[in-house]
Amino acid sequence: MKVVKFGGSSVADASQLKKVTNIIKSDDSRKVIVVSAPGKRSANDTKTTDLLISLGESINNGNKDEQIYNKVMDRFADIGKDLNISNEVLESIEQRIKEACEATSLDYIAGMNALKSCGEDGTALLLSAYLQSSGLESSYVNPKEAGILVSDEPGGALVLDESFDQLYELRKRDEILVIPGFFGYTPEGKLVTFSRGGSDITGSIVAAGVKAELYENFTDVDSVFCVNPTIVDNPKKLTTLTYKEMRELSYAGFSVFHDEALIPAFKEKIPVCIKNTNNPAGQGTMIVNKREEKDGHVIGIASDKGFLNLYVSKYLMNRELGFGRKLLQILEDEGISFEHAPSGIDDMSVIIREHQLPKEKEAVVTRRIAEELHVDTITVEKDMAMVMLVGEGMNQTIGIASQAATAFRHANVNIEMINQGSSEVSMMFGIKSDGLASAVQSLYRTFFS
Amino acid sequence: MKVVKFGGSSVADASQLKKVTNIIKSDDSRKVIVVSAPGKRSANDTKTTDLLISLGESINNGNKDEQIYNKVMDRFADIGKDLNISNEVLESIEQRIKEACEATSLDYIAGMNALKSCGEDGTALLLSAYLQSSGLESSYVNPKEAGILVSDEPGGALVLDESFDQLYELRKRDEILVIPGFFGYTPEGKLVTFSRGGSDITGSIVAAGVKAELYENFTDVDSVFCVNPTIVDNPKKLTTLTYKEMRELSYAGFSVFHDEALIPAFKEKIPVCIKNTNNPAGQGTMIVNKREEKDGHVIGIASDKGFLNLYVSKYLMNRELGFGRKLLQILEDEGISFEHAPSGIDDMSVIIREHQLPKEKEAVVTRRIAEELHVDTITVEKDMAMVMLVGEGMNQTIGIASQAATAFRHANVNIEMINQGSSEVSMMFGIKSDGLASAVQSLYRTFFS
Repeated sequence: MKVVKFGGSSVADASQLKKVTNIIKSDDSRKVIVVSAPGKRSANDTKTTDLLISLGESINNGNKDEQIYNKVMDRFADIGKDLNISNEVLESIEQRIKEACEATSLDYIAGMNALKSCGEDGTALLLSAYLQSSGLESSYVNPKEAGILVSDEPGGALVLDESFDQLYELRKRDEILVIPGFFGYTPEGKLVTFSRGGSDITGSIVAAGVKAELYENFTDVDSVFCVNPTIVDNPKKLTTLTYKEMRELSYAGFSVFHDEALIPAFKEKIPVCIKNTNNPAGQGTMIVNKREEKDGHVIGIASDKGFLNLYVSKYLMNRELGFGRKLLQILEDEGISFEHAPSGIDDMSVIIREHQLPKEKEAVVTRRIAEELHVDTITVEKDMAMVMLVGEGMNQTIGIASQAATAFRHANVNIEMINQGSSEVSMMFGIKSDGLASAVQSLYRTFFS
Repeated sequence: MKVVKFGGSSVADASQLKKVTNIIKSDDSRKVIVVSAPGKRSANDTKTTDLLISLGESINNGNKDEQIYNKVMDRFADIGKDLNISNEVLESIEQRIKEACEATSLDYIAGMNALKSCGEDGTALLLSAYLQSSGLESSYVNPKEAGILVSDEPGGALVLDESFDQLYELRKRDEILVIPGFFGYTPEGKLVTFSRGGSDITGSIVAAGVKAELYENFTDVDSVFCVNPTIVDNPKKLTTLTYKEMRELSYAGFSVFHDEALIPAFKEKIPVCIKNTNNPAGQGTMIVNKREEKDGHVIGIASDKGFLNLYVSKYLMNRELGFGRKLLQILEDEGISFEHAPSGIDDMSVIIREHQLPKEKEAVVTRRIAEELHVDTITVEKDMAMVMLVGEGMNQTIGIASQAATAFRHANVNIEMINQGSSEVSMMFGIKSDGLASAVQSLYRTFFS
């Protein structure tokens, strides 16, 4: 049994949904289908989820935007018409959106979660109906019916362990099941969404629950590239990588697969395959537990901007038991999560994503650190970028650090920070953002040419 | 006014104390002298402080070792005889040692602190008497009289701020003042020692207190080497380095000057000069606030063994607010101070000096981390060494990391950990201990040949 997830571009219009149907038809084991909301049909198009969010915001502002509402409805209507779907299906989609609009006007957060989920839900209803009309036995399965139970963290739900046993019951069903991605229900029955892009998470949860032989993730790229293709032209494709490698790559700039989506698949050791809806015969990229040729090579370069370095120094810091802990405690008190906290003898740096530390928080945090920890200096350096080299076994290979550092030198980019040794499969470099592109290009030449 | 400190080898016997006296005579501004306890006279000799510690331990075991007691007394008696010092001075030294022995049998820790201080105290009494007999006006000044007030941390006292104003009063005195190093008194009048080698600290505190123009630190080397001379033959000598550079070098293997001793001098911006008692005309090494040629070069390589890496991994660690802080809290609860704590996405390493984590503590800590933080894996990797490159401005110089990493590669040594960016003046590499010598030699060739 395979679980197959189709992303936003794969379900953007009727012609894409026909491709999806052919993909499902071509392999009997594709039994459980998870879908995203209709994505962009062209570069200037707007994703359905973005329309729904704008709609919800207009309601929250006391002035429901009917134009946006109509745009949403038109998207579903166009698909329904092109696929000859019965009006009943479209009416039930519209009914659900209307209810979510009302809910939003009463309770913004709960309503918005319901409204955001309408994109995936509508797609699942449409696809299930189309599969039936194409002669395949099929059912729409709501996440509540499927048993996807989640924590009550709107926009950032985490799956609850009890989900998996219930999902396993889906194996008993014979027809093709179509489940909308992106949301689940709390044990109290409240609809809560995952973080953005969360259909990948639903797919992974379902794959783990039904103990699928494979979790296929159809998107609009043939495979995962080894580096951001907007920085390097025509980069190499990855045919196989491990869960750990993918997780590290996802963290910093690799948006092809959701950061957290790997966890459920990883726990059950379900292999994941990234494929292209527009080229289903292509090899794709396999994500597996163990890769055979673990020769300690760099397999990918991830990179991301938008970091800052909170730097403090204090004489005899290393003699002060608890200094680092107290500094991290202040950040925790203020709800700020950090990425790394390398420390020297009398210095400590904390790398934070810039959005975590808006101006007013920055003032509070720096004042508290100065007053409570009596530091000598405290500075905040912005516009930092992180570059991450990823590869299993890499950290046990002599010479990788040397090659990497030389690549930065050739790009004439200074390395502000190196974080190696904490992760077994990656090496991280902090640089100024303006040197990012040339540094990544130089690293690519070093490790992939 | 200069404050001049003479280390253990400089006061090991009468001939050395004659050299000391000539050094004091040769410069009128050498007004405040701080002395260590008599050190080794030859490679197989025992330092007076070690004798005193053994003596104290024998008392604590209920069986005072008279042989050791006599050895201690013989050392002072030999010096006194060779310098024609009056018996009164020797009697007062013996009286003090006897009192400390008695105190040790009553209160081990307090008594031991007093006993350990007898080496420096005796040297100060002998030197002051000898200076007088050489025609110089001189007084022995006890740290209590001088005003060296410290915290009540036996064997690890910290100077209290109120000391400095009182020390400034010493400027009013005309004669040469000889102060024993290594200890001070709590405000309640209890004698407490600094950490081992603490005479350097006394000298620095006194230099800061009297606002000396220079703090001269006489030892048995011509200057500070840029690298451990037991690893590299005949290494280059450093003529000038900054406080920060010296502090980083002192941390990992540079024992020529006490780690903490720089702080008081630094705070008052008193330049420090390391000189050789056996070659006082030599240039020595100056430690200053700012170095003129700050060209971003590596000026020294420090290295030390005896570290371990406590490694934990947990899926979604980077999403868990407070994870790092909780881990450090457990270490703090158990009284373990750490050196560095680099973290990845789902991993965190904590570098700890091995003596901080004895076997029984290791069991407690790993159990607590496993149970309280629900980590996926936890390992302790021992036999690690740290290598530190030091140099002001180095971290802003493109290419240093590349040269360093290449040097490790040429030595065929894998870099387990890199910590760069937390300190402005250093870059730290973690490697397996068995590769230390060849790595340091390769780095020396790269940066100093």
